[in-house]
Amino acid sequence: MAELVTNDPSLEGPLGIVRDAALVVEDDRVAWVGRAADAPAADRTFDLVGRCVVPGFVDSHSHLVFAGDRSAEFAARMTGEPYDGGGIAVSVEATRAASDDELRGLLTHRVAEMRSQGSTTIEIKSGYGLNVDDEARALRLARELTTETTFLGAHVVPPEARGDRSAYVDLVVGDMLTACAPHARWIDVFCEPNSPYAFTEDESRRVLRAGLDAGLEARVHGNQLGPGPGVRLAVELGAASVDHCTYLSDDDIDALAGSETVATLLPGVEFSTRSPYPDARRLLDADVKVALASDCNPGTCYSSSIPLAIALAVREMGMTPAEALQAATLGSARSLRRDDVGHLAPGARADLTVLDAPSYLHIPYRVGVPIARALDL
Amino acid sequence: MAELVTNDPSLEGPLGIVRDAALVVEDDRVAWVGRAADAPAADRTFDLVGRCVVPGFVDSHSHLVFAGDRSAEFAARMTGEPYDGGGIAVSVEATRAASDDELRGLLTHRVAEMRSQGSTTIEIKSGYGLNVDDEARALRLARELTTETTFLGAHVVPPEARGDRSAYVDLVVGDMLTACAPHARWIDVFCEPNSPYAFTEDESRRVLRAGLDAGLEARVHGNQLGPGPGVRLAVELGAASVDHCTYLSDDDIDALAGSETVATLLPGVEFSTRSPYPDARRLLDADVKVALASDCNPGTCYSSSIPLAIALAVREMGMTPAEALQAATLGSARSLRRDDVGHLAPGARADLTVLDAPSYLHIPYRVGVPIARALDL
Ligand SMILES: [Zn+2]
Ligand SMILES: [Zn+2]
Repeated sequence: MAELVTNDPSLEGPLGIVRDAALVVEDDRVAWVGRAADAPAADRTFDLVGRCVVPGFVDSHSHLVFAGDRSAEFAARMTGEPYDGGGIAVSVEATRAASDDELRGLLTHRVAEMRSQGSTTIEIKSGYGLNVDDEARALRLARELTTETTFLGAHVVPPEARGDRSAYVDLVVGDMLTACAPHARWIDVFCEPNSPYAFTEDESRRVLRAGLDAGLEARVHGNQLGPGPGVRLAVELGAASVDHCTYLSDDDIDALAGSETVATLLPGVEFSTRSPYPDARRLLDADVKVALASDCNPGTCYSSSIPLAIALAVREMGMTPAEALQAATLGSARSLRRDDVGHLAPGARADLTVLDAPSYLHIPYRVGVPIARALDL
Repeated sequence: MAELVTNDPSLEGPLGIVRDAALVVEDDRVAWVGRAADAPAADRTFDLVGRCVVPGFVDSHSHLVFAGDRSAEFAARMTGEPYDGGGIAVSVEATRAASDDELRGLLTHRVAEMRSQGSTTIEIKSGYGLNVDDEARALRLARELTTETTFLGAHVVPPEARGDRSAYVDLVVGDMLTACAPHARWIDVFCEPNSPYAFTEDESRRVLRAGLDAGLEARVHGNQLGPGPGVRLAVELGAASVDHCTYLSDDDIDALAGSETVATLLPGVEFSTRSPYPDARRLLDADVKVALASDCNPGTCYSSSIPLAIALAVREMGMTPAEALQAATLGSARSLRRDDVGHLAPGARADLTVLDAPSYLHIPYRVGVPIARALDL
């Protein structure tokens, strides 16, 4: 291949680039990386002449378990038309009404679509069931496709529970958590005091602590719609990631910089909601660990394209192409506490994404063009 | 199919939508359109259950005949680094140095890539040869793939001619035009007094008139980098299209509104150069005919994605999803003076683009995801 991006800091530059490279795979792991001229013999070879290979994208934030169509809501938002189509309630109703097979079909199709765009590790959240059975079902189906499943019963207070928020939080940390924990690795909460149906700081802390007590690890939706306590709560509880991070105070930046918590940016959301983009440059300059992911979901961003997220990060958020690619691979792997993906040093999983291009620079350069795909070994 | 967009004004709404539709093709032409329940029998059928079908995208503005790699120039521009890599001269040098087979291979690959993203009619310009033989070669190779070839010897004054601009214009309207006209339908010029190597109003008029006299039809690059005479010149000479239209005066709008000249918008350029987007709403509200195209080229926009152009038009330029889709089909067909493409009424070419989605609204809703592809009949 023309260019191999390894993210191995012992190699060239921050991306650990090898030119005129080869890579040897044994048992789904990277066994050897180096110049093609020095490569050992192999049983089977792939012809990647002139191509660039990068670590498979790690999409650390997605909401793929849903049914229903909300494209008219998107169109109304974009054109400034009033629209009372029900918002997230539409997805909740359609998801609850779908059979297991219907949901499994939708989920399988979406995961395949992500893979066809270069994503090889995919986190999937629940959050459109919002009752014990449908949340547990969502996670059980997601677990068929990924180990990175996230219980998000605290996505919003569902319509039928809006008269008694605290009873809903009781349910989330009680029976719902009990039913969901066996199918989930992560606990998540939409901590957003600026939204009436999301969760306050105290509610969020309660949800996250209950998840941690049940053996799950924490991640947080925070500081998306305005300033808020999400980032500081995530750091306080040692969450692996706090996602969105659009509105940050200097204290939030300091808290992140002094922690292992990754700031995950989701610029597809800002594109699809015509909102201001987070300032990635400010985070990077403060040495905060940054990840990029899709947030693929039916309400605020129905894009599953990590290449688009990279292009938006470069166009709109002050990231260099190298920083954006690293955030979507090594950064998002770190946000999932995974050291076996997001890089291509020997020993790592052989999750390879091939570009129909000679350099990783083409990911943002060729915005919108599907040049990346996961290689089927 | 779930939804068929015909652009036939006698059917539902501005897009002429048929729901639960079928379409019958005979000899590469649309023979019948209507409800699936009423469809006549056919010899062969395509299963498009749940899908949306739209007229194949008409990409009326592209610069596909080039060799060389300018991704590092893109990266430098995006990150604000100084870069003296030579700009367009890099493409000119590499294109001149490439063999016919190399150029043909690059061109064929790019056209296939466009088709795989839903574009079925593609205009291709010369403009990286900038001498008699290499301009004629570019058009001869492009003509192997499309009837919509455009002679753009007046792209920029090439490096070796910068000491004597008028001699270069003499060459363009003389020997170069003579060599190129047999392979071209269109004459084009980069009319941009704000760029030192583009062409003034007088130079542009001379080039366009010579092309018209040689039997070509006119289109213009105008008003991209600042206010200028491009739009008014295009209208004066009855050009089919004036492309870019980023900086328009009220007089420019009035001139367009009173003419048959189409304003072609190319938002991939503004994305890839971080420039202000043209105001499509202002044009539409003045009843100017609007088209959308890619401007796929190695310098200012190496995206060949019409779906991305549609999404940007909706996000950034005040177009509704319906207006943007119509601009990329019917509008761009009109900009090529084609009435056989861009719509799907009986008699039109059966250029069908299938979406992996139930509605055309998903084109901008699913930004970045390759849901559109041209159907191979
Ligand atoms: Zn989310
Ligand atoms: Zn152009």
